[in-house]
Amino acid sequence: MKKNAFYAQSGGVTSVINATASALILEAKKHKTKIGKVYAGKNGILGALREDLIDTSKESISAIKSLKERPGGVFGSCRLKLKDLNKNKKEYKRLVEVFKAHNIGYFFYNGGNDSADTAYKVSQISKELDYPINCIAIPKTVDNDLAVTDCCPGFGSAAKYIATSTLEASLDVESMSETSTKVFILEVMGRHAGWMAASSALARSSNNDAPHIILLPEVVFNQQKFLNKIKSAIKKNGFCVIVASEGVKNAKGNFLAESDTRDSFGHTQLGGVAPYLSSLITKKLKLKNHWSVSDYLQRSARHIASKTDLQHAEAVGIHAVKYAIKGMNGVMPVIIRGKGPRYTWKIQPASLLKIANVEKKLPKSFISKDGFNVNLKAVRYLQPLIIGEAYPKFCNGIPKLEKLKLVNVKKKLSKWEV
Amino acid sequence: MKKNAFYAQSGGVTSVINATASALILEAKKHKTKIGKVYAGKNGILGALREDLIDTSKESISAIKSLKERPGGVFGSCRLKLKDLNKNKKEYKRLVEVFKAHNIGYFFYNGGNDSADTAYKVSQISKELDYPINCIAIPKTVDNDLAVTDCCPGFGSAAKYIATSTLEASLDVESMSETSTKVFILEVMGRHAGWMAASSALARSSNNDAPHIILLPEVVFNQQKFLNKIKSAIKKNGFCVIVASEGVKNAKGNFLAESDTRDSFGHTQLGGVAPYLSSLITKKLKLKNHWSVSDYLQRSARHIASKTDLQHAEAVGIHAVKYAIKGMNGVMPVIIRGKGPRYTWKIQPASLLKIANVEKKLPKSFISKDGFNVNLKAVRYLQPLIIGEAYPKFCNGIPKLEKLKLVNVKKKLSKWEV
Repeated sequence: MKKNAFYAQSGGVTSVINATASALILEAKKHKTKIGKVYAGKNGILGALREDLIDTSKESISAIKSLKERPGGVFGSCRLKLKDLNKNKKEYKRLVEVFKAHNIGYFFYNGGNDSADTAYKVSQISKELDYPINCIAIPKTVDNDLAVTDCCPGFGSAAKYIATSTLEASLDVESMSETSTKVFILEVMGRHAGWMAASSALARSSNNDAPHIILLPEVVFNQQKFLNKIKSAIKKNGFCVIVASEGVKNAKGNFLAESDTRDSFGHTQLGGVAPYLSSLITKKLKLKNHWSVSDYLQRSARHIASKTDLQHAEAVGIHAVKYAIKGMNGVMPVIIRGKGPRYTWKIQPASLLKIANVEKKLPKSFISKDGFNVNLKAVRYLQPLIIGEAYPKFCNGIPKLEKLKLVNVKKKLSKWEV
Repeated sequence: MKKNAFYAQSGGVTSVINATASALILEAKKHKTKIGKVYAGKNGILGALREDLIDTSKESISAIKSLKERPGGVFGSCRLKLKDLNKNKKEYKRLVEVFKAHNIGYFFYNGGNDSADTAYKVSQISKELDYPINCIAIPKTVDNDLAVTDCCPGFGSAAKYIATSTLEASLDVESMSETSTKVFILEVMGRHAGWMAASSALARSSNNDAPHIILLPEVVFNQQKFLNKIKSAIKKNGFCVIVASEGVKNAKGNFLAESDTRDSFGHTQLGGVAPYLSSLITKKLKLKNHWSVSDYLQRSARHIASKTDLQHAEAVGIHAVKYAIKGMNGVMPVIIRGKGPRYTWKIQPASLLKIANVEKKLPKSFISKDGFNVNLKAVRYLQPLIIGEAYPKFCNGIPKLEKLKLVNVKKKLSKWEV
């Protein structure tokens, strides 16, 4: 029997999550005997609970295709984690109510490991609440910290942004270093896993190239060794480029970004690793330095997206539909890397039980002995993920955004307060 | 008689200053009866004083052409301002010595208003020290604060980076705003002039679009009005995007970026306007916010350069050569905007006396009444400068850098200590 599908975006967005949405919606249209309409949840799972559904069938094909070029999460995202089914049955019963009211038989949830957990819980509805649903989680995170999958859609583009920015900024500081700035610090995301900081290594064409220091959350920060490392980089190159993960911690296990500023001001958001390190370098080494914090820029920079990453993002969307109509439940389409020297990949289903709430950190085998760098093994892993450019169309000098209608589906149920 | 040329880069670099160098070197090759070799000064005027000259004739044509795609200053830059001729004749005599030793009759200095001052002083050598030299300053600055010229090469590309980044990040925060981040702050350069912050207005397709607040150094910061403005933006849109110039000052005339942090830590570099505002918003409005500081990224982002800006950068390099061989001295090729609705421009010489040390701020007539925005007049001025894309070649996922030989010219004189 023909059922409608629910699709939603969850957690921090990426520059290619809408490409997954686009591919999924277009693929669903190819299976009209099995899938009716695709309803997008407004703001993730909240959209399902609140019955806030967007009817994607009202959009033109060209509008759906244009999502491939649009960063952010076009249907809105959320950071809400469902409680366990036996602890909060009310929420799940509401989901079933909404699914029934709108004849929804497919549930697609596009997110990271928290979202995989939510998707896993929803997949239990079939068994526990006796409502047949095919629940597929779709991977997405710039953090690249999902288990099982070789990499995560969204990461490759952030990595390309970071490598490109590191290269460009290093040429800038190099030219200024004789009479002005000697040190440049770029702060990147990755609170718990150093994948994004590691990707800055791809800026190098030879070993001595910038970045000269990479600070990873997996390595405890050692101030003296760090300062010595800067001195020797400047001695060798005349300047020093540092890429630091926002999640770098000191020996006490505190984030550097918070350690100094919290005591003085009483609030933790002033910080940032980059200004912390800048202050340290100014104080201890008396070196002129500049710093940059990429923050949302790195995960929304669709203009410098990786073509490979974009292809991954589309493929997981397409396979999610294929798995759902095959009757799968509680799985995620993951990216499997082929063996052999040339980069190849394919998509394969994996159980959400292995993915939900698991965090894949940068392995020790990828980190240099002194802890301030990643090695060739890491570079070999990372390199293929940033290959290829996939520029969006521009209009009036900025990326062109096609207008979407975002038509709400008429509500049939009473209001839900989250 | 055939003379060699000296070319150097000065002050903060841009993503297209090497495009000017490239165009100048290629143009000089077209005038072999008048110009011999082009010697590039290593690190600006320092290269002339130290007799650190790079022989650009040793580079392949393809290497010179590749400079159009390379950000930073390939020959090195400096922040050194020459003293007045009558106050430090020694320096000028040294210059003449170096010029004589290497048969240099053309002096090209690529920089901002400080550099125009240096170029003007060097142009006086002809008259004061009786050494014939044709001195041409070439405009370059992301700050866009040079007088006479309609705009400055380097600015359009930084503006395109800022407008694109503001648009992309605004889509990110918009999708997160329901359950997470409500405010995003982007800090951009422009210590004294708000051109770069103003260019974020180009991210808008309609009036309500982000950025919702632009903080300019030309407008005194009013904390209460600022906080009210955020509240009303969130009421209207659900989120608020702020673009702040690093040079925003409070009523006492102090930079916001320094006002709080200096007192507590005793060093001024920890700050940054963005973390300052973030802290303020957290404390006073209790709103979750994110912030980014572009710093060098915005002035080195060659991957998102404006084609129009790139064309300007090349044109000023070409015209500098034309003016020099016509025998001009103490001038700068400036960009003149045509009248009429379609954007047109041409290059024209202007006297350095009108340009040196003058700082062109954002005019009052470009700023909205409440001081938190720029108006249509500003947008009309800014818009044409970011039009067109000019992507560099990529290799292995990052911008391709062609190797340069950078062969030093053999020194003929004794060492010079600056």
